[in-house]
Amino acid sequence: MAKRHPEAHSIPALSLQKGPNNLITDVAGVTVGHCTLDTELYKTGVTVIMPCPNNPFHHKLPAGVFVLNGFGKTLGLMQLAELGVLETPIALTSTLNVGLVHDALVGYMVERCALEGTEVVSVNPIVCECCDGKLSRIQDRPVREEHVRAAIAAAGAEFAQGDAGAGKGTICHGLKGGIGSASRVMEIDGRRYTLGMLVHTNHGILRDLTVGGRPIGAQLAERLDAGQCDKGSVIAVFATDLPLDGRQLRRVAARVSVGLARLGSYIGQGSGELFLGFSTANPYDPRTEGAIRAGELFSDDRLDLPFRAAAACAEEAVLHSMLYARSVTGYRGDRVEALGCLWQPE
Amino acid sequence: MAKRHPEAHSIPALSLQKGPNNLITDVAGVTVGHCTLDTELYKTGVTVIMPCPNNPFHHKLPAGVFVLNGFGKTLGLMQLAELGVLETPIALTSTLNVGLVHDALVGYMVERCALEGTEVVSVNPIVCECCDGKLSRIQDRPVREEHVRAAIAAAGAEFAQGDAGAGKGTICHGLKGGIGSASRVMEIDGRRYTLGMLVHTNHGILRDLTVGGRPIGAQLAERLDAGQCDKGSVIAVFATDLPLDGRQLRRVAARVSVGLARLGSYIGQGSGELFLGFSTANPYDPRTEGAIRAGELFSDDRLDLPFRAAAACAEEAVLHSMLYARSVTGYRGDRVEALGCLWQPE
Amino acid sequence: MAKRHPEAHSIPALSLQKGPNNLITDVAGVTVGHCTLDTELYKTGVTVIMPCPNNPFHHKLPAGVFVLNGFGKTLGLMQLAELGVLETPIALTSTLNVGLVHDALVGYMVERCALEGTEVVSVNPIVCECCDGKLSRIQDRPVREEHVRAAIAAAGAEFAQGDAGAGKGTICHGLKGGIGSASRVMEIDGRRYTLGMLVHTNHGILRDLTVGGRPIGAQLAERLDAGQCDKGSVIAVFATDLPLDGRQLRRVAARVSVGLARLGSYIGQGSGELFLGFSTANPYDPRTEGAIRAGELFSDDRLDLPFRAAAACAEEAVLHSMLYARSVTGYRGDRVEALGCLWQPE
Amino acid sequence: MAKRHPEAHSIPALSLQKGPNNLITDVAGVTVGHCTLDTELYKTGVTVIMPCPNNPFHHKLPAGVFVLNGFGKTLGLMQLAELGVLETPIALTSTLNVGLVHDALVGYMVERCALEGTEVVSVNPIVCECCDGKLSRIQDRPVREEHVRAAIAAAGAEFAQGDAGAGKGTICHGLKGGIGSASRVMEIDGRRYTLGMLVHTNHGILRDLTVGGRPIGAQLAERLDAGQCDKGSVIAVFATDLPLDGRQLRRVAARVSVGLARLGSYIGQGSGELFLGFSTANPYDPRTEGAIRAGELFSDDRLDLPFRAAAACAEEAVLHSMLYARSVTGYRGDRVEALGCLWQPE
Repeated sequence: MAKRHPEAHSIPALSLQKGPNNLITDVAGVTVGHCTLDTELYKTGVTVIMPCPNNPFHHKLPAGVFVLNGFGKTLGLMQLAELGVLETPIALTSTLNVGLVHDALVGYMVERCALEGTEVVSVNPIVCECCDGKLSRIQDRPVREEHVRAAIAAAGAEFAQGDAGAGKGTICHGLKGGIGSASRVMEIDGRRYTLGMLVHTNHGILRDLTVGGRPIGAQLAERLDAGQCDKGSVIAVFATDLPLDGRQLRRVAARVSVGLARLGSYIGQGSGELFLGFSTANPYDPRTEGAIRAGELFSDDRLDLPFRAAAACAEEAVLHSMLYARSVTGYRGDRVEALGCLWQPE
Repeated sequence: MAKRHPEAHSIPALSLQKGPNNLITDVAGVTVGHCTLDTELYKTGVTVIMPCPNNPFHHKLPAGVFVLNGFGKTLGLMQLAELGVLETPIALTSTLNVGLVHDALVGYMVERCALEGTEVVSVNPIVCECCDGKLSRIQDRPVREEHVRAAIAAAGAEFAQGDAGAGKGTICHGLKGGIGSASRVMEIDGRRYTLGMLVHTNHGILRDLTVGGRPIGAQLAERLDAGQCDKGSVIAVFATDLPLDGRQLRRVAARVSVGLARLGSYIGQGSGELFLGFSTANPYDPRTEGAIRAGELFSDDRLDLPFRAAAACAEEAVLHSMLYARSVTGYRGDRVEALGCLWQPE
Repeated sequence: MAKRHPEAHSIPALSLQKGPNNLITDVAGVTVGHCTLDTELYKTGVTVIMPCPNNPFHHKLPAGVFVLNGFGKTLGLMQLAELGVLETPIALTSTLNVGLVHDALVGYMVERCALEGTEVVSVNPIVCECCDGKLSRIQDRPVREEHVRAAIAAAGAEFAQGDAGAGKGTICHGLKGGIGSASRVMEIDGRRYTLGMLVHTNHGILRDLTVGGRPIGAQLAERLDAGQCDKGSVIAVFATDLPLDGRQLRRVAARVSVGLARLGSYIGQGSGELFLGFSTANPYDPRTEGAIRAGELFSDDRLDLPFRAAAACAEEAVLHSMLYARSVTGYRGDRVEALGCLWQPE
Repeated sequence: MAKRHPEAHSIPALSLQKGPNNLITDVAGVTVGHCTLDTELYKTGVTVIMPCPNNPFHHKLPAGVFVLNGFGKTLGLMQLAELGVLETPIALTSTLNVGLVHDALVGYMVERCALEGTEVVSVNPIVCECCDGKLSRIQDRPVREEHVRAAIAAAGAEFAQGDAGAGKGTICHGLKGGIGSASRVMEIDGRRYTLGMLVHTNHGILRDLTVGGRPIGAQLAERLDAGQCDKGSVIAVFATDLPLDGRQLRRVAARVSVGLARLGSYIGQGSGELFLGFSTANPYDPRTEGAIRAGELFSDDRLDLPFRAAAACAEEAVLHSMLYARSVTGYRGDRVEALGCLWQPE
């Protein structure tokens, strides 16, 4: 699939300037890769967020998570919350494929660490999921180790949005969803920092969809026959170069809820809402550090700017996941329409 | 202050019918009372939600809480979450007055229980707060026992919204906020149930205020000089006659976030967002019940309707808190304008 | 491996009578099965707890979890906590094998539900883990689908304790640990109820081991060279026929901490302490139930008895995991001694 | 009450050396003061922990909390957990007196900040409580502002243990409890750090009391008629000069559970178990700091030492609360015996 230019669609920046590519990869060091399965039976895939160019097991990063609705099978969040660190790539995939993708990430980490002389006996891979069972024969768990490796190999600063990778088969507000991204730049005490986000969207009901305050979904619902059931999930992952700790990253993650609500989600009971984030500042290498090291501390008093950035990124990234997506027809013949074919932002 | 009719202002019901009075008191048995302090120095007060006509210490009700932003001095939530019950009235007041209102509720509960032959040695009053220190000389903690007793005595099915009780001195989106309420009716398996909510609003920035998708706040901000700092809080309390347990009530409470975001909140760092709710079903009397009693259980699968009701009530109740409020001038001469004088819903 | 009789070893019942077999399977309907890998390279396996004879996806049971130390890769706890239900067997295995065991459980559930006419697109398997990397070449993830199926097929009311199943390669207080179990009977309002527990032990330091108040570990440490590093984990799973809901099961789970501490654990930083439990009462079938059903409610006031039962079961089950275990030599020649060869309770 | 020398009673140090006074005040800057009410009607009081010599509102310290059993009316923990900071003294008092002590702390903070030119409109006092209603006429809430001020004025490095301050009327394991303290010294990367703890004990059943593995309580229960009901609570507050953040302090706090269990607690349903701690490192002054400041970061890998220190301090501090206490007779003539009159450690 060709990479489409991420500048094509956007919504107002809510006072904060967008990053150069308006992508999570505007945060230095972060890369993203997809592997997409697009066959008659399968509309699925895997998307990998690489938090840094280094081996993350030797370059552990502060991380936090906010669970708004814990209906989901995400793997690794308990330890991430307890220790406040991320030590692997983050993979997104299909619900029933979480186990195999976990296994692939374990294999990747064992190998990569072995090359650097570390024998891994315990590692905490992060695997998040949305259910693409309407369009893809999910019971087969078709995402295998080679697909995870391919996504890692493909990781770069540019990546496709819409029906790509883990987003190939997901549905957002009754239309085609998938992967979306956005970023914002914050000026704090004279320095520029970036917060970038990637979302995997599979939530919401068509008639609730609201864009910039306009009831786009209700208008489209008059001519489309989209489901009324909010089963799915939405995963949001953000990165920032602000020196936030795990507790603060959790607080920033909570503001993703704002962006979702503005686009019309009311957080359905069967829709897992999970938000996690990491900072590229204050990395920790367990091989070399002593018990105490020097670092940067951020004042909670000053969190309003990253809060606004997270809310704005979430709203825009979800919209991007829909606007970049193409219509997709599932293995049983169900066709899910693309928003971009039905409506365009002015 | 005269009670203004609650039907005067409203926003669309988002598919769910409103209750007869569009108030939290549409849930049978729930009453609300205010005591307002309106002097040169003080624009403050106390609002009391009585969960049932009975003594709540002998008629304990299932309850749950969701903390979206724990910047706040609310009292009693830890035990409410652990035990999943409410055993006192819920009081709302000014931040620095939480201690004295707690003490007044203790006194009230000790007395009321003594009349029924119960000696109270431990009780868990719920006291929530917003900071009205811009308009009221908050350091004096002027709300005393007699005011709490007056609010309890005044409790009824009808009550004022806007700048009343604990809402006398609070500010919402840079305009006068206060107390707001709304309710929705849900038809489930052939029976009608009600969810009603009361909010105490003190959060948000003017330019973010959005009503029905329209950027009302941004328009008003061009002619008003309102503060840009989101310090305050918003408390939402809901009641329902659906037989939900503490865990499920917590899940419903999480959806209050949706209503706040739709009106323009991005959950400021200094704005405590606390949402709690109780069910009037499955009461528990510790004096008479055995270890196991018969009760009604609700299926989580069917929570989408109360979720939508909570989101809709929150959005409308916050708007009501502003539309019913009158402009108020504080003890230092600061005047906070009423939304209703500047803009009216069509 | 021959099943050894579970009555052989025991500690005082702390006022509560033991169940007939002193096993988790004393709770009616609960069964346990192991599949053990015992080769030159691998000392590992999988243990499965079947919560009921029915398909748990159609017979969902109330469940709760308490995380004392979230250093662990357990899968499925987030949704279990949010919804308060268990809908699959619970599998225990080796840390790096969590993904493959998840995948095997998904396959099993998809198949089993298909036989009953349900197409599964989303299911929440519970997979817990301890790290057996000192004795077993953990990086190979040798536990495969056939082993999970074998453990399920082997499930019954009787099962081996000690170095069996997932416990084959784990180490507890520097000695051989593994799987242990215990149960207690509670008389409440004239009826008898049972709480049974199964633990997977891989935690603690030798010199801290205390049995019935005696410093057994410190004595043994003078002649044994056991590691001083508390890396591992301990998982406790309990079942009860008391009608507890998810919140109450979480409260019971918290008391597992008491049993661990009495035996000498201080909850090491690298030792994941996870406790989960389910009730066999108030099952829920999503295919047939309406929104509201009749059920039994338990009073929190009366939880002291299940609390004591959980503490007593945890203490005894951990001791059983050690007393039933045989010495095991790992793939690198490390020999881990069995407590039973060094010391016997009087 | 005369200050009794804290070195008089002690239990083995579990490998870690005790601090010079074996008190929480061994952490530099921390002081403690009591005000005790000892009249015919009242056996109660207030104990205040001053976290630093500075005004804590201008010298905010990292803080964390672990709730093992949230049956309690403690005030201020929600914000402490959200922001990870402590900004006032910590007060301990009687359950029904929480409101008045909160009000007194508010008054104190408003005054103290005014002297330094800060107008306080919002502050988060921490007030914890145990129920002394068996010995003291708790319904009268006799602890008033002057008592809180007296406790603050009395704060110093030396302070009484046992039936002093908030501990005057509390009962531990059926015997007289109260205030206890202990400390441990840790050597980390060549530097010495201290962790000190203060407990307020009101929990446990006599026959469960275990000291150094010996069933002291069961032996005493044969000749004493002590209650069998575990209603009460235990509060543990610790301080350390290790540079731990809020998340890490929460992790340390969780290990208090170990010390309680070793002495025989099984965490009764009606016994609130709350543990909180703060670090004197990395203070934050909101008046002068920018968004980002330099600080020290501690590696979670190295937490085992403070974990052991917290467990050891908790065990010893609870024992101290009993050994230092004298027998007390309540307002209804109930006499609660002192452990020290019945048994002495060898």
